[in-house]
Amino acid sequence: MSRLGNAVNRLVAQGPTFAPGSVWLVGAGPGDPGYLTVNALVGLTQADVILYDALIDRHTLDLARPDAEVIYSGKRAGLHSIDQNSICAQLVSLAQSGRRVLRLKGGDPMVFGRGGEEMLMLARAGIPFKIIPGVTAGLAALAIATIPATLRDVNRAVVFATGHEAREAPETDWAALARLGQPIVLYMALRRLESIATALMSGGMAPDMPVAIIASATMPEENVLVIDLATAARDGDRQPIDPPAIIVIGEIVRMRAKLRTLAPSLAEALA
Amino acid sequence: MSRLGNAVNRLVAQGPTFAPGSVWLVGAGPGDPGYLTVNALVGLTQADVILYDALIDRHTLDLARPDAEVIYSGKRAGLHSIDQNSICAQLVSLAQSGRRVLRLKGGDPMVFGRGGEEMLMLARAGIPFKIIPGVTAGLAALAIATIPATLRDVNRAVVFATGHEAREAPETDWAALARLGQPIVLYMALRRLESIATALMSGGMAPDMPVAIIASATMPEENVLVIDLATAARDGDRQPIDPPAIIVIGEIVRMRAKLRTLAPSLAEALA
Repeated sequence: MSRLGNAVNRLVAQGPTFAPGSVWLVGAGPGDPGYLTVNALVGLTQADVILYDALIDRHTLDLARPDAEVIYSGKRAGLHSIDQNSICAQLVSLAQSGRRVLRLKGGDPMVFGRGGEEMLMLARAGIPFKIIPGVTAGLAALAIATIPATLRDVNRAVVFATGHEAREAPETDWAALARLGQPIVLYMALRRLESIATALMSGGMAPDMPVAIIASATMPEENVLVIDLATAARDGDRQPIDPPAIIVIGEIVRMRAKLRTLAPSLAEALA
Repeated sequence: MSRLGNAVNRLVAQGPTFAPGSVWLVGAGPGDPGYLTVNALVGLTQADVILYDALIDRHTLDLARPDAEVIYSGKRAGLHSIDQNSICAQLVSLAQSGRRVLRLKGGDPMVFGRGGEEMLMLARAGIPFKIIPGVTAGLAALAIATIPATLRDVNRAVVFATGHEAREAPETDWAALARLGQPIVLYMALRRLESIATALMSGGMAPDMPVAIIASATMPEENVLVIDLATAARDGDRQPIDPPAIIVIGEIVRMRAKLRTLAPSLAEALA
């Protein structure tokens, strides 16, 4: 334990300094604080104020200084555009008051997380900022489900897409994605899975293409369900799963069953 | 410092146990040890033997136990298929001898990293294994270049693809990717950038589409070059850049220049 503590202290000493009056946009990883990076820990233990999103684990917030201000900035579905402006304004005013401001987001801050808009607002206000990338939820979900993102004889590309309903940008061309023939990792798509699966089949994707639904990856309640595309397209045919979930569609999903068939004795270790 | 050390010790106490006779496939992140996760640190400080890839930083290997065996398993281009089998065999035999075996890979172990094949070999041999996801090089490169992977009014998907020449899988359909109209993050594509850029233009991508070449992200020698697609397609028209590099092609790249125009005083802080 103390070896690890010493190692971390050495890394931190070489790490970035959190300047007063600046903002760090930090990825918290998929949920389990074990997937925080050293630089995220550096930020969390130095910050004067932390604005955190929904899906941030309580143990992660316990890393804040006892005197740090910790503010919930989670957004409810449907109220994104209103809240995002006030979050940006809050980041700017807190930094202008000379505090070290940490904006903590699930996964990686730049993947379907509004980090781009926050960077833009900070630059407009002349606030220095730093981005601390994190383990994105899609890759963590694949890891816990023992599904490789890429497999040499299967795919040379992988697509990350959001299922969240579009307002500012045109809806994803699911038929074109189906024709591309590469695996798709979907964020925030649970509620729209039926329509996305239908659109992928309309684009020519095979009805027996496997679909893994990976809920609460890395958290105690994590849960993996594998179905096929045709089942995914029929509302009510699958068991209910609660968000947050990552959905993976593609041949790479077959690896999960293959590993369990090869090594039934590992099934529990791999569970 | 000691607060951070204590925090890490608490996280580690709740973290996974590295069982003798098992293999952990661990993502080391983009290079800078500051992007190691807590669970990667847990593994590195417990492992009896570490097999590490090219591009792993020396400071990361310093985290190994003084009595741990540390073995270089980097592969040279063109010799992949030979070496991969011997690495897999070595992982199996080391685990069968009862040691805690850590396979350390740059970035995330399942993204263009042969992790899938290693899982398969381990399962065939009945070796228990665990995957520790990491910060993938593509997302770290975007972060240091201040390019958002997704931006609400620009894209609802992002494609990760390898430029490495295919043998086992068919060549990526670059024209189809161009028609998809979503940003592309390329791994290991520096040597083939001219032909990929040409293929993307043949598929209809605009010649003035911005292309960011991000070399050695998070390392002291990191370097970002932004050109356009037409320049990328002309061999010799751009300044030389050494691998490793991540290449990002798409409208999201424009954010980098936009931020610098908005906040010229931040240019150094953002560099």
